[in-house]
Amino acid sequence: MAQRPPAKEGMSIDEIDTPALVVDLDIYERNLDKMATMVKNAKKKLRPHAKMHKSPAVALDQIKRGAVGVCCQKISEAEIMVEGGIDDVLITNEIVSTAKLARVAKLAKIAKIGICVDDAGATRALNHACAIEDAHVRVLIEIDVGGHRCGVTSAEEALELAKLIKSLSHLHFGGLQAYHGSAQHKRTVQERSDAVSGAAKIIRKTKDILKSSNIDCDIVTGGGTGTFLHDINYSEWDELQCGSYAFMDADYAKNKLNDDQFGTGFEHAFFIRTVIMSVCQPEIVVADAGLKAIASDSGNPTIVGHEGLTYRMTSDEHGCITVSGKERFTLGEKLMLITGHCDPTINLYDWIVGVRNGIVEKIWPVSARGALS
Amino acid sequence: MAQRPPAKEGMSIDEIDTPALVVDLDIYERNLDKMATMVKNAKKKLRPHAKMHKSPAVALDQIKRGAVGVCCQKISEAEIMVEGGIDDVLITNEIVSTAKLARVAKLAKIAKIGICVDDAGATRALNHACAIEDAHVRVLIEIDVGGHRCGVTSAEEALELAKLIKSLSHLHFGGLQAYHGSAQHKRTVQERSDAVSGAAKIIRKTKDILKSSNIDCDIVTGGGTGTFLHDINYSEWDELQCGSYAFMDADYAKNKLNDDQFGTGFEHAFFIRTVIMSVCQPEIVVADAGLKAIASDSGNPTIVGHEGLTYRMTSDEHGCITVSGKERFTLGEKLMLITGHCDPTINLYDWIVGVRNGIVEKIWPVSARGALS
Repeated sequence: MAQRPPAKEGMSIDEIDTPALVVDLDIYERNLDKMATMVKNAKKKLRPHAKMHKSPAVALDQIKRGAVGVCCQKISEAEIMVEGGIDDVLITNEIVSTAKLARVAKLAKIAKIGICVDDAGATRALNHACAIEDAHVRVLIEIDVGGHRCGVTSAEEALELAKLIKSLSHLHFGGLQAYHGSAQHKRTVQERSDAVSGAAKIIRKTKDILKSSNIDCDIVTGGGTGTFLHDINYSEWDELQCGSYAFMDADYAKNKLNDDQFGTGFEHAFFIRTVIMSVCQPEIVVADAGLKAIASDSGNPTIVGHEGLTYRMTSDEHGCITVSGKERFTLGEKLMLITGHCDPTINLYDWIVGVRNGIVEKIWPVSARGALS
Repeated sequence: MAQRPPAKEGMSIDEIDTPALVVDLDIYERNLDKMATMVKNAKKKLRPHAKMHKSPAVALDQIKRGAVGVCCQKISEAEIMVEGGIDDVLITNEIVSTAKLARVAKLAKIAKIGICVDDAGATRALNHACAIEDAHVRVLIEIDVGGHRCGVTSAEEALELAKLIKSLSHLHFGGLQAYHGSAQHKRTVQERSDAVSGAAKIIRKTKDILKSSNIDCDIVTGGGTGTFLHDINYSEWDELQCGSYAFMDADYAKNKLNDDQFGTGFEHAFFIRTVIMSVCQPEIVVADAGLKAIASDSGNPTIVGHEGLTYRMTSDEHGCITVSGKERFTLGEKLMLITGHCDPTINLYDWIVGVRNGIVEKIWPVSARGALS
């Protein structure tokens, strides 16, 4: 049920059908290179989050530059990444249903699969599913480092869970999942720095208590695009999970940087292309990207070249721009928008159109679009 | 790139994989029957909006009960409806690109296609595209009846456009598109009544000026689930375009009804099924439906049976419920959510699971999911 691609290779950017998801390949590759270099210099591993792009083609570009594999949030995403040629996937999330755990076990027979747990019963159920398939999975304990979502809330619970994992036949204790989701979007450097420092303290305490029971952590994994410049300076994390850096979005661009961090940020590579379809109102023009083309959870998109104007997704298939007399758009004019939140927006599309120097160079399928299970 | 269905026919509701879009077939059929009866009694036509369900199977259920065809917002949706067996589709929207207009013309060769215009240049471009294919389309002039989005803003402009349509070789003037989008979600009966009355006045004025130039309107079409109980009482509309009535959502349920309208409302037939996947926090439990499973534009969903609690889509694949000591959920427990806005939520799924008496009876593909162009 994939929709037809909005462009063909070799087309000019003006010929791309709308609404379309367009990536500037030069900027995208600069973002990938910059991250790969910084992570390599810090002697850490990079495991980018594929929930952002949902495309094995992008994941392979990241692995080509040194990434050790990818992260996924769902078993269905992981299956699609493995099918697309990625042989090392960490599911950075808990999975509870028997049917899904059976899929995890089956996938672990053909690729290197890691998964997170935060509950003893669910850990036993995972082992049971793996035993049925005689599959072995790497299991990371998710610890709550300040996000207050999933993850055990004390070092003692982590120790109990680690002992349980080590006692079970088909599970390998792989370390800690330590991701601070809510820290990613804190606006000031100080707030992000404090959140990361607090998370690091929790990791240290957890590693210490494990160590005192002679349990080593292979890997502590976490971090994100928002906190990356802090995460990278802490020895507590071995592996970073940044995702949005490759494409970027308007929300991450709102994070302030210090002067000494200037030039370390990532650039917008990702745009929604939309067309003006109605100009009847004196002060409003209407474009063809609405709530089904742009996720609305992180606010309105920015209009490239018209940053002072507001683009509102007023209904399913309409976006309205309030214009003044001097700033006017013409019917059929095409605009590029920077969306508030890249992840759920990409999940609305079947195709990513890669453009270089105004020409369509690549069309990637968003293979894991709608991979909810 | 469709994802695998979350259920099989004959399964019990408990076996449905999560997150999943579930429709209670008894309630759904009651909604369809109720609307069909009310529209028939009012001697009007019903052309339900397929942008809501995006499923030819649902459209055929509506047509079986007397609907004259469906509405779509995009040419890609219309193509999928025609492919799914619907032979009368009205695109209730403006289309401006040459490539898309060519598709409209091609579709008009194999089905009865209507489309809206609000601009003379776009009308000529449509005629040109139709002439190339020697196709004929029914063209409705969209008039702004208070929504201030698309549509001509005066009766005089409508007259000019009607004259133009009538002068062009491959266009047939089909009447007026008169939909008041922003009136649908006004909360009080009085506000909706006033909005519909204002819209009717604009229709009358437009029809009068057309009449004075000997131009008849075949059809005035518009109305929606929110204003339906008012629309149906006005002779100005010949055809009603309600969509959400079939499934309903939490936002439409917030519209207040008068005592004398009691029993005329539609019931929630449509739910998101989600599972509790983490219970580590003392006051928060986490479920597996986040921003990629539930559209967030019309607020948080309601939790069936726990209406006092709030379900927040805190991230892409997580929803958090803050619980008190007495109201607790267990790991693996499944919940049913009523989403704020059904249309963009359905657009996130590949399948609708139809359930009756706790058993999966039908699995409909959301064939026009992602049909953005």
